[in-house]
Amino acid sequence: MEKILVSIVMGSDSDLEVMSETAKLLEKFDISYEMKIYSAHRCTEEALNYVKEAEKNGVKIIIGAAGKAAHLPGVLAAHTNLPVIGVPMQTSDLGGVDSLYSIVQMPTGIPVATVAIGKTGAKNAAVLALKMLGIKYDKYRKIIKDYREEMRKEVLEKNRRLEEKGYKNY
Amino acid sequence: MEKILVSIVMGSDSDLEVMSETAKLLEKFDISYEMKIYSAHRCTEEALNYVKEAEKNGVKIIIGAAGKAAHLPGVLAAHTNLPVIGVPMQTSDLGGVDSLYSIVQMPTGIPVATVAIGKTGAKNAAVLALKMLGIKYDKYRKIIKDYREEMRKEVLEKNRRLEEKGYKNY
Amino acid sequence: MEKILVSIVMGSDSDLEVMSETAKLLEKFDISYEMKIYSAHRCTEEALNYVKEAEKNGVKIIIGAAGKAAHLPGVLAAHTNLPVIGVPMQTSDLGGVDSLYSIVQMPTGIPVATVAIGKTGAKNAAVLALKMLGIKYDKYRKIIKDYREEMRKEVLEKNRRLEEKGYKNY
Amino acid sequence: MEKILVSIVMGSDSDLEVMSETAKLLEKFDISYEMKIYSAHRCTEEALNYVKEAEKNGVKIIIGAAGKAAHLPGVLAAHTNLPVIGVPMQTSDLGGVDSLYSIVQMPTGIPVATVAIGKTGAKNAAVLALKMLGIKYDKYRKIIKDYREEMRKEVLEKNRRLEEKGYKNY
Amino acid sequence: MEKILVSIVMGSDSDLEVMSETAKLLEKFDISYEMKIYSAHRCTEEALNYVKEAEKNGVKIIIGAAGKAAHLPGVLAAHTNLPVIGVPMQTSDLGGVDSLYSIVQMPTGIPVATVAIGKTGAKNAAVLALKMLGIKYDKYRKIIKDYREEMRKEVLEKNRRLEEKGYKNY
Amino acid sequence: MEKILVSIVMGSDSDLEVMSETAKLLEKFDISYEMKIYSAHRCTEEALNYVKEAEKNGVKIIIGAAGKAAHLPGVLAAHTNLPVIGVPMQTSDLGGVDSLYSIVQMPTGIPVATVAIGKTGAKNAAVLALKMLGIKYDKYRKIIKDYREEMRKEVLEKNRRLEEKGYKNY
Amino acid sequence: MEKILVSIVMGSDSDLEVMSETAKLLEKFDISYEMKIYSAHRCTEEALNYVKEAEKNGVKIIIGAAGKAAHLPGVLAAHTNLPVIGVPMQTSDLGGVDSLYSIVQMPTGIPVATVAIGKTGAKNAAVLALKMLGIKYDKYRKIIKDYREEMRKEVLEKNRRLEEKGYKNY
Amino acid sequence: MEKILVSIVMGSDSDLEVMSETAKLLEKFDISYEMKIYSAHRCTEEALNYVKEAEKNGVKIIIGAAGKAAHLPGVLAAHTNLPVIGVPMQTSDLGGVDSLYSIVQMPTGIPVATVAIGKTGAKNAAVLALKMLGIKYDKYRKIIKDYREEMRKEVLEKNRRLEEKGYKNY
Repeated sequence: MEKILVSIVMGSDSDLEVMSETAKLLEKFDISYEMKIYSAHRCTEEALNYVKEAEKNGVKIIIGAAGKAAHLPGVLAAHTNLPVIGVPMQTSDLGGVDSLYSIVQMPTGIPVATVAIGKTGAKNAAVLALKMLGIKYDKYRKIIKDYREEMRKEVLEKNRRLEEKGYKNY
Repeated sequence: MEKILVSIVMGSDSDLEVMSETAKLLEKFDISYEMKIYSAHRCTEEALNYVKEAEKNGVKIIIGAAGKAAHLPGVLAAHTNLPVIGVPMQTSDLGGVDSLYSIVQMPTGIPVATVAIGKTGAKNAAVLALKMLGIKYDKYRKIIKDYREEMRKEVLEKNRRLEEKGYKNY
Repeated sequence: MEKILVSIVMGSDSDLEVMSETAKLLEKFDISYEMKIYSAHRCTEEALNYVKEAEKNGVKIIIGAAGKAAHLPGVLAAHTNLPVIGVPMQTSDLGGVDSLYSIVQMPTGIPVATVAIGKTGAKNAAVLALKMLGIKYDKYRKIIKDYREEMRKEVLEKNRRLEEKGYKNY
Repeated sequence: MEKILVSIVMGSDSDLEVMSETAKLLEKFDISYEMKIYSAHRCTEEALNYVKEAEKNGVKIIIGAAGKAAHLPGVLAAHTNLPVIGVPMQTSDLGGVDSLYSIVQMPTGIPVATVAIGKTGAKNAAVLALKMLGIKYDKYRKIIKDYREEMRKEVLEKNRRLEEKGYKNY
Repeated sequence: MEKILVSIVMGSDSDLEVMSETAKLLEKFDISYEMKIYSAHRCTEEALNYVKEAEKNGVKIIIGAAGKAAHLPGVLAAHTNLPVIGVPMQTSDLGGVDSLYSIVQMPTGIPVATVAIGKTGAKNAAVLALKMLGIKYDKYRKIIKDYREEMRKEVLEKNRRLEEKGYKNY
Repeated sequence: MEKILVSIVMGSDSDLEVMSETAKLLEKFDISYEMKIYSAHRCTEEALNYVKEAEKNGVKIIIGAAGKAAHLPGVLAAHTNLPVIGVPMQTSDLGGVDSLYSIVQMPTGIPVATVAIGKTGAKNAAVLALKMLGIKYDKYRKIIKDYREEMRKEVLEKNRRLEEKGYKNY
Repeated sequence: MEKILVSIVMGSDSDLEVMSETAKLLEKFDISYEMKIYSAHRCTEEALNYVKEAEKNGVKIIIGAAGKAAHLPGVLAAHTNLPVIGVPMQTSDLGGVDSLYSIVQMPTGIPVATVAIGKTGAKNAAVLALKMLGIKYDKYRKIIKDYREEMRKEVLEKNRRLEEKGYKNY
Repeated sequence: MEKILVSIVMGSDSDLEVMSETAKLLEKFDISYEMKIYSAHRCTEEALNYVKEAEKNGVKIIIGAAGKAAHLPGVLAAHTNLPVIGVPMQTSDLGGVDSLYSIVQMPTGIPVATVAIGKTGAKNAAVLALKMLGIKYDKYRKIIKDYREEMRKEVLEKNRRLEEKGYKNY
């Protein structure tokens, strides 16, 4: 059985739609992962147990997603030797600035590797995990390189299409 | 021995100068309290043990103070049946908006009774604790009433002084 | 006749949809409450009379809800010995930051126990009231404990469901 | 005895240094005024009585100054037929955005004529009062006109000086 | 022919829907007004001529509405002895904070009496104008008083309805 | 063949709808332009090559559009002797403040001529380009002048229409 | 006599210290300039006359600096065919966000080429002027190129020094 | 010779004081590092060459620090397969929100692992690097664990001291 390398933990199932983007990209990168719903506040014990267990089982990176007073990524980061990536959820009232500050402004000693708010951040959590795994696994460095090349070609193709069609027919 | 009614928990000794304002006002209100430094992230286990023990020993209210990604009040609130008052610390870069959002925007089910940023909030945490204790203890309702009257007189005295001296000699 | 323990006061009937969440949760917690519309500015006298009367009649906690330059919770807090919980309404232009600042940044001596913006805050006002009532009534401490356990189970059930179904079929 | 036309009410004597700027400018404009310290929360009754009395005695304009959750101008505005000018105090944590929102975002029916944060606002409260008095008194329209001309000349003189001396010797 | 007392000037016809609220309330208050579209930037000369002419013709108050870098109210205020009320338009990107800052943060000597963002501000501009006209005209002081009483009754009626019907049937 | 004077470079084809406004206005001003999609991060080399080539071919002005951490305009500005105009895209979470800060707060030596967020900015990029081209080409100074006159007439026509029809029938 | 190419206009002599940075850099770039103090509000007529005259006399670029509700650059931009560069002054209460929004969020048709807040922006106004002048004058394109090379060398020299000395002795 | 594992790149030597905190902590963690000054804009080519070379030479993690429109970390991230950690510098006008948004809001595919603003972030960049290196090197996982234990003991010692001395003698 394949070992799980990345664990996605979200604070609520309302984060699931956004965090599916992380899952899809990890699949594309051929990174084994698992996905959990554990609240930092409602089931702290289970969340911490899970994180400690995951580390023992060989998980290399934790991705934590939460919104508003988004404590989950920081709480996970405090209880593991693994790097934790934090994805701030967009919020309907403050746009996600609350989530962002609650994740990125962590005190000395307990960093959370914070990415962009919302779906962009969810995708970038996967890419950042890929780059971190590249520290250890040559396979993933190759995948990063290919992914970067793929992105480059996509933009150039879009540019070519714009040149050909013009903005009115794009 | 007098029972402790209020517990002040701060995330770092850098919060001590501000939170001394809470202590002084609790002393003035004749409310027994104790003061602790427990980080939500650096010693979660000890923090949670302390909070649970305090509740068993009859503490009625927890006051949590923290800055930046200020998780402490929320983490305490998640592990106690007691009401938790949160005091957001002022921060040098974002003014304390980060602390405020991280404390006040708590998810459903885990409220933190948030007061103003910095020293004003530290004092108001004591006043709010006093008002909460008044739910149970008649003694404290009397003290609130007197305190409100004292504040009223102070303002009226200032007004009288301004009327007498004018703004140039106040 | 059952005594009213909690009073919900809102500044306008446009706050009613949000504050119904408070009412529903108080009902679930078996807390007797009443609900009023009193504007801090349009009928100050009636608002203050009501609050003073409520206190005399044994109400223990006031929940005040208001939006924009949200003065109501602070004005109520200034005229009662009871703890006042403030719920900042979301606003269409500033997202509710105006309501939040107008409620949480109260001056020394007149705290408002502020909770999150909008519906989350409306629900949390009920939970905070429950926790405050627990200071006096054993019955409510039991309800808090059960509610916390219920939340824990809900998350664990969601997690179980995610593990079973995966994110594609959740 | 000269009738008082403008009343300056501030929430705390800590606002006095800033609001002295209003007083000085009113003196320059030959507008009779009085200056009071009345807190919207600590002595609401006295504040409202004062405002109602002032109106009866012929005061034409109220200037209210307050900081943080700055309710005073709005509370005064709700209890008088007179126009109320609000001056938001600068705050050490949020810069005065809290004061500004709490004053300017007043609900329908209770406007506060809000001016800039801090000393600039304090001065402009006097100028705005002057302009409002000009609606009734020809004398003050003349003073406005002269003041505007004076400002114009001051700038032109500064420009002349810069042209003459250059920026290195200005 | 009735003399015009209030002039509403807006920067663009996209502000018309919001500023209609001002017009409707002025009509209710029996205040004669006129409504103009003059841009501070696109036709400065016409805007300034209009304002100077209006003043000569007996207009007492100017209401200026604008969005984004909202210069119109300030530019008008700089060229008249009349008080100018500023209404910041809501904006789709920044919510109206840009409009608010551009109107309220006016430099010393050129105040704009700023009201709330959007429709609330549009209505309050009319109420503030009413209060200013009350300085000179007894008729309008009576109308203010009645309007305040009307608002009071409206809230009390809403409260009565809530008491009768409960939140579920309101 | 006509020489290209202005180059529009956008970071993504999701910016195309907004930046079409720039294109339309350049067409109206009779300014030859070309439009490209080059990402500052995904194809830096191609972006920089393009910009250097454009300069050699006689392009006079670069317009760069990007959203979120909007680096493109700044990166282009760093690699050309031409003036670069930056258009911050509106964003769904932060409204475009992120794009604005990332474009306007450029360090010493590498300015980006920043215009408003979103479609207004897209149009103004064209007008600013027109004004810059006017430094060299008399033809464009004439077009600016006509455009300014056209805008003036448009506002006056709107005003005339409002005067004629009133706000109810506008 | 050398023709003036750039005009620096500031709203107040309190902006002079910051705007001296623009002057120094224009001197370094060998660009003839003049410096004026004209307020958009206090002496609009003189400001507009000056700008129109400057254009006639061959000035190519206007640099406008202002703080708070910073209307000057926009007002100048509305009355000239020349490109206008706006420098937002830092403010003690809002940090300069008010100045920035008042300058950058200009409505369609009247762009201001906005640069960074404060001294960085003051310097960049000079660099942007240099780049704009390069559209017409070959001499200045050479100077830009040299300046860019100079900046490059400066950084590389700093890097060399850091490599040599280490961070402790830098 | 020891291989360099971490590279610190800053945009300016004004960032050196803050980034020394990163260096000191890396030294404490026994992580070999080097420190460079390369501007994303002033010497892009050298910066990119350096980053590519560093990767080839076995560097595992890049730490990029920059302020205001802080493009450096993002530009580095776009040109390497290595994970890039971004440290937003505090700024005198906007507090560092500009730096934060410019670093954290990176577009899809180019994440920057963002940490807190200023010195806290500088220290946390080192801790995050340590955690990332732990993915590959057992040695560093041991160091993390010890560091976490050390932090725990520090807090507990502070708490003990507070219990012993009280807040007045702490």
